[in-house]
Amino acid sequence: MDYTTVLNEIHTEIKAIPKSGEIANYIPELAKVDPEKFGIHLITKEGENFGVGDSEEKFSIQSISKVFTVLLAFHIQGSEIWNRVGKEPSGNPFNSLVQLEYERGIPRNPFINSGALVICDMLFDGYASPLTETLLFLRDLTNNPTINTNPKVARSERKTGYRNLSLLHLMKSFGNIHNDVKEVFDMYNQLCSIEMSCADLAEAFLIFTTEGKKAIKEKYNFTDSNIKRLNAVMQTCGFYDEAGEFSFKVGLPGKSGVGGGIAAIHPNYYSVAVWSPPLNPKGNSYLGMKALELLTTKTALSIF
Amino acid sequence: MDYTTVLNEIHTEIKAIPKSGEIANYIPELAKVDPEKFGIHLITKEGENFGVGDSEEKFSIQSISKVFTVLLAFHIQGSEIWNRVGKEPSGNPFNSLVQLEYERGIPRNPFINSGALVICDMLFDGYASPLTETLLFLRDLTNNPTINTNPKVARSERKTGYRNLSLLHLMKSFGNIHNDVKEVFDMYNQLCSIEMSCADLAEAFLIFTTEGKKAIKEKYNFTDSNIKRLNAVMQTCGFYDEAGEFSFKVGLPGKSGVGGGIAAIHPNYYSVAVWSPPLNPKGNSYLGMKALELLTTKTALSIF
Amino acid sequence: MDYTTVLNEIHTEIKAIPKSGEIANYIPELAKVDPEKFGIHLITKEGENFGVGDSEEKFSIQSISKVFTVLLAFHIQGSEIWNRVGKEPSGNPFNSLVQLEYERGIPRNPFINSGALVICDMLFDGYASPLTETLLFLRDLTNNPTINTNPKVARSERKTGYRNLSLLHLMKSFGNIHNDVKEVFDMYNQLCSIEMSCADLAEAFLIFTTEGKKAIKEKYNFTDSNIKRLNAVMQTCGFYDEAGEFSFKVGLPGKSGVGGGIAAIHPNYYSVAVWSPPLNPKGNSYLGMKALELLTTKTALSIF
Amino acid sequence: MDYTTVLNEIHTEIKAIPKSGEIANYIPELAKVDPEKFGIHLITKEGENFGVGDSEEKFSIQSISKVFTVLLAFHIQGSEIWNRVGKEPSGNPFNSLVQLEYERGIPRNPFINSGALVICDMLFDGYASPLTETLLFLRDLTNNPTINTNPKVARSERKTGYRNLSLLHLMKSFGNIHNDVKEVFDMYNQLCSIEMSCADLAEAFLIFTTEGKKAIKEKYNFTDSNIKRLNAVMQTCGFYDEAGEFSFKVGLPGKSGVGGGIAAIHPNYYSVAVWSPPLNPKGNSYLGMKALELLTTKTALSIF
Repeated sequence: MDYTTVLNEIHTEIKAIPKSGEIANYIPELAKVDPEKFGIHLITKEGENFGVGDSEEKFSIQSISKVFTVLLAFHIQGSEIWNRVGKEPSGNPFNSLVQLEYERGIPRNPFINSGALVICDMLFDGYASPLTETLLFLRDLTNNPTINTNPKVARSERKTGYRNLSLLHLMKSFGNIHNDVKEVFDMYNQLCSIEMSCADLAEAFLIFTTEGKKAIKEKYNFTDSNIKRLNAVMQTCGFYDEAGEFSFKVGLPGKSGVGGGIAAIHPNYYSVAVWSPPLNPKGNSYLGMKALELLTTKTALSIF
Repeated sequence: MDYTTVLNEIHTEIKAIPKSGEIANYIPELAKVDPEKFGIHLITKEGENFGVGDSEEKFSIQSISKVFTVLLAFHIQGSEIWNRVGKEPSGNPFNSLVQLEYERGIPRNPFINSGALVICDMLFDGYASPLTETLLFLRDLTNNPTINTNPKVARSERKTGYRNLSLLHLMKSFGNIHNDVKEVFDMYNQLCSIEMSCADLAEAFLIFTTEGKKAIKEKYNFTDSNIKRLNAVMQTCGFYDEAGEFSFKVGLPGKSGVGGGIAAIHPNYYSVAVWSPPLNPKGNSYLGMKALELLTTKTALSIF
Repeated sequence: MDYTTVLNEIHTEIKAIPKSGEIANYIPELAKVDPEKFGIHLITKEGENFGVGDSEEKFSIQSISKVFTVLLAFHIQGSEIWNRVGKEPSGNPFNSLVQLEYERGIPRNPFINSGALVICDMLFDGYASPLTETLLFLRDLTNNPTINTNPKVARSERKTGYRNLSLLHLMKSFGNIHNDVKEVFDMYNQLCSIEMSCADLAEAFLIFTTEGKKAIKEKYNFTDSNIKRLNAVMQTCGFYDEAGEFSFKVGLPGKSGVGGGIAAIHPNYYSVAVWSPPLNPKGNSYLGMKALELLTTKTALSIF
Repeated sequence: MDYTTVLNEIHTEIKAIPKSGEIANYIPELAKVDPEKFGIHLITKEGENFGVGDSEEKFSIQSISKVFTVLLAFHIQGSEIWNRVGKEPSGNPFNSLVQLEYERGIPRNPFINSGALVICDMLFDGYASPLTETLLFLRDLTNNPTINTNPKVARSERKTGYRNLSLLHLMKSFGNIHNDVKEVFDMYNQLCSIEMSCADLAEAFLIFTTEGKKAIKEKYNFTDSNIKRLNAVMQTCGFYDEAGEFSFKVGLPGKSGVGGGIAAIHPNYYSVAVWSPPLNPKGNSYLGMKALELLTTKTALSIF
């Protein structure tokens, strides 16, 4: 497969698409990002790197961080994590609170906010400094010691996080938050503010491919089966209310964030990350989804 | 891969599992089935057949029929079908009616009852005798001219179908049912009563593999991309409220029915069907899911 | 109290209010009504009649008919009726189906559509010809032998009644409809099409006052306590999602219909009916509510 | 009316009823109360006092405090309060969060927790020390300078108040909480812990009768119409999910609390308060409701 040609074609086609979508504006720091930014980076299982556009520029990974904390929670507690968070898609967003209430404080999956908050809470059960551990893990995964949070963004998140505080207190009322609400909330906001480039994300996501990152998998006791199963959860739950649409159009397990990033993998071939800030109405990168659809169409390599 | 050994091992391990689950009893005809029945049949892309247990015995395929009618609706209307039915998982069953109401009569996906009813309605838009067309299509797919409905089962369905009539009238109130409610309802009940064996289902499901059933794909104008995308919808929506669990444990696109059957495929390797009547609380075959979990574990061939 | 003056003042003030609201247009026959129509009729416990405007002109009473069928169901089954229908307000309209599903087919109260359909079903348990019995009861209550249904309106209702059929089938699936769905549906549509004038309605509603219609109360075995309790249910449930607003502004038990009629009573003083076709967004007569608010303000005679 | 005889009869009949219901146990301090306690106190518009049983013993008024803060909020903001809180019944409890979400942070009415929290927030808009103002208002209303909060109970509330914090943060996310969440939460818990006797409550509730507490009404600018309308809101919303049942059986506007108290009024005749700690499954005093049902039956004086 000539990925250089494929990515260049994608870049050209994406640039020709009329602008659409809006940048996440509830966080002032995110609203400042240049909407024209576009990058895509792919790494094959053989370790070849292909990048076009702004693929080396860091951006706010936001909810993509949720897959890394799930890995760490799994490292600490193994399959026990599934006692406190489900693995089913959540359906409609408007249900978020009623579903959580109806299901007595057990979030549907670890990639909706309530689920990610429970995962953060688990990290406090296992680590004295869960944020530090997460950053060390990410630096290890990416071989990039500069990976860090953005304090301004973290502060912005905190100011607009009333809904997350509402979710936390509701789960606390059901006994599914064990640690201090404020500490878990703060950790969550820091995680959302982590900055990585497409190249960093693609490198980190190699862990989700069958052959990738064997040393780290061993170090953290992740088996092939563990990884495949997390991929399955990403596939069914990784794109807010558009998991079906993403499966349908792209056909790869992945995770998106409101910073405009999407990271995905084909288990047997490559990892890939794309970045374009404007979002569609469901909160996923408008051009990022298009780019990945073009990728699997051009390579004819979806998992289906 | 030595599928003979794999299937025999599965058979042995399944027989050793203590009985659990209950046969669907809301339909008297289904309640009469021997709960000890167990069959599994796998067909490789090369066309090799492997069957164990009651793999040649016909049973009520129930909701598995929904994937065949989607194919026919797609044949008639192409991607227009997605204007009248979504492709997102539905979340909690308790939402079924409220979701349909909130989303103004557009069902979440074609594999929940409301969605399958809309698909039936589409067949009436395109065919004079949609049931006949469906049976001919199935006989063609399976090379088995004896595929048919079971009138007793169809009558049983009709008697207990008040909830489906409720869904139909609600969708009619939103303009998403175009034909006569009674005719669509009757067609739906007939479809649920279709009887096939594991061998028949595995044969028919070859159409969802990349290389399978090329002649039929051509005849009905199904492209590779169409098929991959339907697989994606099966993956995210094919197992009631357990799509995530099935993805997590089995990792194959598939569809289950309350008759105790499950059919699934690995796009690059095989199709497979399993049958065991007792159901878990979510309505999927208890041992069927176990058998498929064993299959992907033993072959290490999930799509993830 | 000088009701002649009060009603004339109301008439004058109502005529000065700028037009607002829309006539119910989902039923073609109702859409033809002159939106300028306005009538109000009050009858004191002493039997004095006061009418202004179009108070003698018949109109479609629609949901006001629901209070009369509750009386008949109560006559047949006594307090047994509360086993199959609740007496709590329903909250948000958007919940109608989910609430019915969550509460396993038991409607919240007899004045929402689902509840009124169950009440119709009860009449089929007790009467060979429930529609005839209802009309005879109404003619008896009003001393007006011309009270009747409007076949054109009933046919119109039938054509747009898919949501009611959906409710009926859902309740049938829970075992809370005992008779033939089509017959109950037809009866319900006929009831909605009954035509009465403000004068007729005020006369009939005397039964809900403490001193009124003693002979009929005796004939049907209604005690004072029965009547007071039905008044309480009207108060909390009689105005769709505006029961609180009506209580707050008017402060009388009553019942409205989408034909633009409202009938109400002050238990110790009078019955009253008002008619003005344009509806507010909640489906209650816009000027009818204003008129009754003026009435209780001018007379200082709310029940609170 | 011989209220002495009526109350004595009620006392005797209540004592003969087999024990049922459970004391609120989520607050340790409340769980310690003697379940055998029973008191009832009635004050006529003429100012005559009638008390039986433990009618002079103070208990935790809990949610009954909500009606007093509504009065103060109304005093500060007048009918502006209805822009931030509705006056419709809430329907099913399971909806509490979804309804609040669907209605964008505007609680259904001031007597559900979310509504009472918004009312507290309003008091912070108008008073430097809203708790002190509330206590002064209550001492004024009751002529009892000993009315106070119970710090132990307030602390207990705080510990179990995660759901209230969830509601507060959700409303804050919609902009309907203006002040500091912690301060509003603390104020709310203090209010719930206020202790009053049946005699105190009956005295205070005279303000809701037509003729009662004229001096205070004047001081706070409450018109007859204001009071009647608050009575209407109590009637439709004052008893959790049992407003309909209470209207049906008792037929008086009132408010209950999980401490086992209920206060109610007949606008033209009397105010009354009853206390019995064991609660029915809806959270209202089991014997308190029975006692008030006996009262309106024996006196034939419901508002309907």
